[in-house]
Amino acid sequence: MRWAVILAGGSGSRFWPLSTPSAPKQLLPLAGPTSTAEQAVTRLEGLVPRERVLVVTGPALAGPLNAVLKLPAENILVEPRAASTAPALVWATAEARRRDPEAEVLSLHADWTIREDDAFRNTAAQALGTAARHHRLVTVGIVPSRPDTGFGYIVPGNALDDTARTVARFAEKPNAATALDLMASGALWNSGLFAWSAETLLEEVARHTPELSSHLGRLTSGDVAGFFASVTAISIDVGVLERSNAVAVVPGRFTWDDVGTWDALPRVRKRDAHGNVAVGPVHLAAAEDCVVWSAGDPIVVGGVKDLVIVHANGRILVIPRNQAADLKALLDQLPAEVRDLP
Amino acid sequence: MRWAVILAGGSGSRFWPLSTPSAPKQLLPLAGPTSTAEQAVTRLEGLVPRERVLVVTGPALAGPLNAVLKLPAENILVEPRAASTAPALVWATAEARRRDPEAEVLSLHADWTIREDDAFRNTAAQALGTAARHHRLVTVGIVPSRPDTGFGYIVPGNALDDTARTVARFAEKPNAATALDLMASGALWNSGLFAWSAETLLEEVARHTPELSSHLGRLTSGDVAGFFASVTAISIDVGVLERSNAVAVVPGRFTWDDVGTWDALPRVRKRDAHGNVAVGPVHLAAAEDCVVWSAGDPIVVGGVKDLVIVHANGRILVIPRNQAADLKALLDQLPAEVRDLP
Repeated sequence: MRWAVILAGGSGSRFWPLSTPSAPKQLLPLAGPTSTAEQAVTRLEGLVPRERVLVVTGPALAGPLNAVLKLPAENILVEPRAASTAPALVWATAEARRRDPEAEVLSLHADWTIREDDAFRNTAAQALGTAARHHRLVTVGIVPSRPDTGFGYIVPGNALDDTARTVARFAEKPNAATALDLMASGALWNSGLFAWSAETLLEEVARHTPELSSHLGRLTSGDVAGFFASVTAISIDVGVLERSNAVAVVPGRFTWDDVGTWDALPRVRKRDAHGNVAVGPVHLAAAEDCVVWSAGDPIVVGGVKDLVIVHANGRILVIPRNQAADLKALLDQLPAEVRDLP
Repeated sequence: MRWAVILAGGSGSRFWPLSTPSAPKQLLPLAGPTSTAEQAVTRLEGLVPRERVLVVTGPALAGPLNAVLKLPAENILVEPRAASTAPALVWATAEARRRDPEAEVLSLHADWTIREDDAFRNTAAQALGTAARHHRLVTVGIVPSRPDTGFGYIVPGNALDDTARTVARFAEKPNAATALDLMASGALWNSGLFAWSAETLLEEVARHTPELSSHLGRLTSGDVAGFFASVTAISIDVGVLERSNAVAVVPGRFTWDDVGTWDALPRVRKRDAHGNVAVGPVHLAAAEDCVVWSAGDPIVVGGVKDLVIVHANGRILVIPRNQAADLKALLDQLPAEVRDLP
């Protein structure tokens, strides 16, 4: 049967001061009235039933996620420690197989914004079909809408069937020139949307991932804490997909974004006639191309351009949009009592 | 004896959202640790004793001013209505004469920033001396440090003695070209710092100011409310000084500012190495020439330039510095519940 694993760890600071350790990005209504985590579960309706949706997260977020997602309690898998994506996905996949030996698993992230839910479901179903038919680890490669330097790319190889191809290689986040070349040559964004049968993933891990394989027995015996204490932190891309010969890619033709910075919000939020995104009690006069978000006091903005202005959790942030990607460096300069949020 | 009249009415919105009806500009610590109203009283020490300092203000501010100025209660003169400067100064001058028939009056404003207090006192004493000696209404003309278009100018005429001259004419707030011409020709800023004997002012009003003169009897009989209900609102400049032939000017060689906008703060506040003025819990990284004031939450500012950023009284303002003079127009566009402050 089909299962879904939603990775919902991470407490990034890229949406400071709106994001906090107990309400990080995936729990924020960044792209609409509900959080991207809630949207991720809702978007699976008709594809994977809620009782087979697993969520992997850390101890601090299990409660807040459970409160909004309303999944069966045993479907919230709490990692003893954050160890990148491979241990999380291997554990969740092993857990799905424990409950269902025929488990076919879709892997996704809780912080995505996807516009065309139908196209997403069709593509995901196709990826699950490809995984079953070819016994491969299937990646969904998003057809790029711009030469983005913030994503990794998948270079497709030979055709496996009408839609699926082998993977020639994975390309790391490129520089601007390389991104243009990749996009022109038909490379696809590596979204993190994957499909595999539990059996295939665990076989490939046993074959290629010594960082995990020698500890798989602990999962079989139910010793999750021991598994996480023993494994090396490694991503599913580096630890498995880039090493395996049983990988495939299917194209995803839907609008997909991981909204990595304040600057990215206008890609997923409605803009006014002057290109501004305004959320909360915000009053703009002659502002252009700004991102203004108040979860606190009214913000009155005059004729400024290309700024991010945020009030949330007792902090105010004002930065140029083109410096939003460097927010972490700015926060590192702050005294802890200003930077740290409840 | 010497008396001082401090005009402390006005509840302007030019320092919104920091300034409020109950704490307007003159009660804010704009230029230092204490309010400009407190500084105005302190600056008079040695020149005019506190028991002869009168303050004219409106009903809403009498309490707040009294609380910080700690003058005798009967020295706070509460105008029944705001009617510009001539009625206020005529009333206060008449009140000084009622208490002291020989009253010599210095008139000043509660919202000034003056750097050299000694020079101020010397000039004020000189103006009082000139007023007594020549029986004139004496204006102090500030020697300009820039061709400011925000002030009126005084064009001096013939010499009356070593320092005092007649006034050839008063010039309204000029355009930029005219301001340069005025400055080059030796014109002085019309600061509003005046000196006169009570007798001379009331004589000149009786002679030149029909808007007030026919109602002076009400003041004599103690009917202040009747006086204010009857008079026309008119400034001392237009109503008296520009009409009188008994006017003089003495030069003031001290740093004087009325800090009319957020943009003007860097003239009177210490700037950091990048030209920023930061007050309150403010954290700047690579910001240049900004004015950032928090009376509320910490404000974190990245690499922006020439902005005014303020958090106070539950409101946040972000505008370019060069639009600070147009703040009132911006506020007029706001819903009342955002604009109005307690």
